[in-house]
Amino acid sequence: MIWECNDFINVKEVGPRDGLQMEKEWIPTAEKIKLINALSKTGVNGIQVTSVVHPKAVPQLADAEEVMRSIERHPGVSYSVLVPNERGAERAVPMKADEWELMHSVTESHSLANANKKVDESLKEHEKVVKLANEQNVTVQGGMATALGCPFEGKVPFSRVAYVAEAYYSMGIRSISIADTIGVADPKLIYTTMNRLINQFPDVEFSLHLHNTRGMAIANVLAGIDAGVRSFDASMGGLGGCPYAPGATGNVSTEDLVHMLDLMNIPNGVDLNRLLDISKIVETLVGHTLESAIYRAGPADQLQVAPTAQKKIGK
Amino acid sequence: MIWECNDFINVKEVGPRDGLQMEKEWIPTAEKIKLINALSKTGVNGIQVTSVVHPKAVPQLADAEEVMRSIERHPGVSYSVLVPNERGAERAVPMKADEWELMHSVTESHSLANANKKVDESLKEHEKVVKLANEQNVTVQGGMATALGCPFEGKVPFSRVAYVAEAYYSMGIRSISIADTIGVADPKLIYTTMNRLINQFPDVEFSLHLHNTRGMAIANVLAGIDAGVRSFDASMGGLGGCPYAPGATGNVSTEDLVHMLDLMNIPNGVDLNRLLDISKIVETLVGHTLESAIYRAGPADQLQVAPTAQKKIGK
Repeated sequence: MIWECNDFINVKEVGPRDGLQMEKEWIPTAEKIKLINALSKTGVNGIQVTSVVHPKAVPQLADAEEVMRSIERHPGVSYSVLVPNERGAERAVPMKADEWELMHSVTESHSLANANKKVDESLKEHEKVVKLANEQNVTVQGGMATALGCPFEGKVPFSRVAYVAEAYYSMGIRSISIADTIGVADPKLIYTTMNRLINQFPDVEFSLHLHNTRGMAIANVLAGIDAGVRSFDASMGGLGGCPYAPGATGNVSTEDLVHMLDLMNIPNGVDLNRLLDISKIVETLVGHTLESAIYRAGPADQLQVAPTAQKKIGK
Repeated sequence: MIWECNDFINVKEVGPRDGLQMEKEWIPTAEKIKLINALSKTGVNGIQVTSVVHPKAVPQLADAEEVMRSIERHPGVSYSVLVPNERGAERAVPMKADEWELMHSVTESHSLANANKKVDESLKEHEKVVKLANEQNVTVQGGMATALGCPFEGKVPFSRVAYVAEAYYSMGIRSISIADTIGVADPKLIYTTMNRLINQFPDVEFSLHLHNTRGMAIANVLAGIDAGVRSFDASMGGLGGCPYAPGATGNVSTEDLVHMLDLMNIPNGVDLNRLLDISKIVETLVGHTLESAIYRAGPADQLQVAPTAQKKIGK
């Protein structure tokens, strides 16, 4: 039962990749490196540093090599790179990441729109990436986009999720991230999906990648924990977004996640105050208001000074 | 277990009072009446129409009498008025509300700051209000401000909550609303508090009044349902706010609440599309962006058209 849970929760910070890639204004490489170095000291379990996506597709991450080369690596923090395809994998080899994150759409229409490939074609290519990772002794995490809803197809049958999970499993992958890419999952869907996956693949470590597009990300974290998930992606300040929901919020914010876990006495090892210091820098860098509730409102334990007298009203 | 819950959830719309009272710009009385008439057709269980607070304290609600006189009353909808004190109760009598909502701080410092009275003094005054309500045959709901956290005292011992609940109970009140006035409650606190209250007062109907100040309101709804709560306050567009957390969000938004309940197949009787139509009007009236995630992003079932071809990148 979630109300008795005091298992350790792993928090992976995905802001430097999934957050910044949505930012139109160029963030100088030196600033990215400073941010990641600061994030390394917060206690997060992992940092998704960058992506070896084509620079024309995501100009913001064109400095992937320089960022990976220049950051300080802290023991206990796993530094990952998103590897979208075989060409990217070749680029990723010299970066010496601790982890390669694969991303695979669960639905055919999103796979075509996002990777210009059918699901099975894309899985074939992923096999080659995994082979290369194994040769390089790099851990692989298999990601699943649109696993909980697709912008083009709507609800996604569980059989599709299980199909891609099975494909990853047969490649030898034992770490799988389930993404609510467009932020449509409700807590019940999260619970039932993760419960079935964990039962079907008991030796896989599943993590959740949640977007707060429809305000349910924090509730979905609860549902995930209740189903047995112990690893969550989150983004500094709630950076990120969804091209299919303009004006919508991004990833679940790291500070909102950690703040709730702390209040619930669920250990997570992350220092909330350091996260808030980083968000202050992030807000200046991106030049717009952050979505993080805790950044805006402050932590729950901030007390106010009580007024000493009330102004008399009326006669 | 919440994942199997399909009990009916009662939604009370508190936007016309708790939402609008935070708006600095005057909303014309005719517009308020139109809004409330539209809300009456959404399927909500109740509407908190206004408050008989002193007009100098909350100028926005100075038209309480005219609003209550002019709205159309729909069968099945309970129209309530917030009655802060004895003087207010006398004003409320001719309004013929279905329900008077009392509001009482659980903590001494908030009681002094908000009502200029000690907790026990204020409870004494509430007794007189309840007596008047009984004479008028009006239902009374006892509200508890700062029940889940106080801006001046921080965490609130459960004994304080039980003390005020007991006082309400001994006045004959069997409907009690527990408010997270400053939006600091986490889901575990909600679950344990509501669980204990429901066990201690099995013949009282408890409802939750949640603020989304720290992004946990929707998760707190889940926790409340899990503990057995079946009635929730919510505010159109997420209107409302917290004087102790500037820039923070307001009440849990009615559309976000109904949207999640619908996705989870939890019956609630409210028409989401009508709520969204109302929020559009509300946004124009208040002249600022609404906090509601669903108003900003649209419901989860809105599909997009898949692109027919992908632009070629690179060579």
